[in-house]
Amino acid sequence: MLKIIFLGTAGAVPTPKRGMPSIMILRNGERMLFDCGEGTQRQMMCARCGFMDISSIFITHFHADHTLGIPGLIQTMNFQGRTEPLHVYGPAFVDEYFEALNILGYLKTSFDIITHELKHGDVIEKSGYRIEAFRTFHSVPGLGYALRENSRPGRFNKQKALELGVPEGPMFSKLHRGEPVIINGKEIKSSDVVGEPRPGRLIVYTGDTVPSDAFLPYLKNADIWISESTFSDDMIDKAEETLHSSAGGVARLARAANVENLILTHISSRYSQDTTQLVEDAKKHFENVIVADDLMEIDVPMKE
Amino acid sequence: MLKIIFLGTAGAVPTPKRGMPSIMILRNGERMLFDCGEGTQRQMMCARCGFMDISSIFITHFHADHTLGIPGLIQTMNFQGRTEPLHVYGPAFVDEYFEALNILGYLKTSFDIITHELKHGDVIEKSGYRIEAFRTFHSVPGLGYALRENSRPGRFNKQKALELGVPEGPMFSKLHRGEPVIINGKEIKSSDVVGEPRPGRLIVYTGDTVPSDAFLPYLKNADIWISESTFSDDMIDKAEETLHSSAGGVARLARAANVENLILTHISSRYSQDTTQLVEDAKKHFENVIVADDLMEIDVPMKE
Repeated sequence: MLKIIFLGTAGAVPTPKRGMPSIMILRNGERMLFDCGEGTQRQMMCARCGFMDISSIFITHFHADHTLGIPGLIQTMNFQGRTEPLHVYGPAFVDEYFEALNILGYLKTSFDIITHELKHGDVIEKSGYRIEAFRTFHSVPGLGYALRENSRPGRFNKQKALELGVPEGPMFSKLHRGEPVIINGKEIKSSDVVGEPRPGRLIVYTGDTVPSDAFLPYLKNADIWISESTFSDDMIDKAEETLHSSAGGVARLARAANVENLILTHISSRYSQDTTQLVEDAKKHFENVIVADDLMEIDVPMKE
Repeated sequence: MLKIIFLGTAGAVPTPKRGMPSIMILRNGERMLFDCGEGTQRQMMCARCGFMDISSIFITHFHADHTLGIPGLIQTMNFQGRTEPLHVYGPAFVDEYFEALNILGYLKTSFDIITHELKHGDVIEKSGYRIEAFRTFHSVPGLGYALRENSRPGRFNKQKALELGVPEGPMFSKLHRGEPVIINGKEIKSSDVVGEPRPGRLIVYTGDTVPSDAFLPYLKNADIWISESTFSDDMIDKAEETLHSSAGGVARLARAANVENLILTHISSRYSQDTTQLVEDAKKHFENVIVADDLMEIDVPMKE
């Protein structure tokens, strides 16, 4: 299971319909949060997605709109008796930020909070997947994150294995693991009955940034790229001045990276009533694009 | 015009239906905020009550659930170009709190933020009313606030004034202001045609606290007392241990103070589905009681 829940899809300012930026990714039993704007804990309650057992929070950058929900979330976790440590990953300033929260008295918790300052190229290895951090280009130090699953073994051709005389059972598993077996004195290789390894899923979230070709190694063939789109193309000057993205700019990059799906978020209150312009600007370059809404859930199927 | 808007009515933890504690009071053109829990700015947008021009924020105490909305609100005010200074009143720690916000980078604003540390008995004189601060009894320094309007002149008996030969016009105003006039050589006193001064309205908000007779001078004859009611009476031990109120406890005090209306807020998630128990506990002692809901608006009429 790999699911994305958009908890808040606003830009710098919330609207009645859009909460502050935050995305939850659920993979098998694990819950991870990416950014945590003001009100995130309540959005999680509305999404009924559970939050007491979030393993980690990944922060793209330390602007207020992406971080002000952290202390309240920590307070509530503490209030509800959490004991498991909480890991917080982010770019430069993550340690100072938590020191300031401590001064404010928000870190007197019954569980440990462990901060990790990441830099470009850092990788967090997990069971079955990894989180890759890479530099983004905004007005403060920023990181994008790529959740990249390990590849899976190729598809097992059961019919062919039976034809080759392999009995159903442990030998099937051996072959599927890549090992050969001997049947009637003849070696049967794994590659005789197992297809090419199947790539794992790849989800990328870039936070606030101008779009850059430097992201291509991380975006390449991604199942889903979640990108900010603070501006429509007619405001490209403003986007460049404030180091944000325009819908067309990210769509061009999505096409160059051959991503499967582009999801636009960080929607300015300018487009709160109508996001048509953003979608139209993007579709000039890339077809598979949607705009995220609060509490929208996306299931990411395995690749065959 | 005197209106109360309940922006958030939750206790320490939000629920899908209840945001974190915050109350707006609008008096004539002025907007004042009492406490500012996480998500308050978005609640204000949902209430469509305006917030760019809030004159002052009054904080009852510096627990996270009553204050975490402050930095985001300030960020948005700045983002939207506010220039008027913002006054923030609170008990001990208000200055340190804003110093910490400054360290976090949230106070680089285009407008001035002026903090005022208040102590028991302090009074803020305003045009036509005053805000009185008084000590409350919680686990950190706390203040309650009484918004007390000046009394209005008594009702003018126009019929009687005409019978006494006073011509309609400037002499009416003079009498209404308390001054005598001479008609046909005979003095007519103000008290001949003007009734007793009519008391102004009184709204009291006490924040988190155990109920105390020490509040009586502030609560006496209040039009509205907004009180926390974190617990129902069956949890009185817990209320006393955590220095919170039970519904019955505040209702007894409301009766002793002869208040007009008691409004319960700071509703624990324990009662999020059903507040019946709180109301029943309170009604044993005091009839005019309701439980606040998010975005509930109360117009407070003038007294005759």
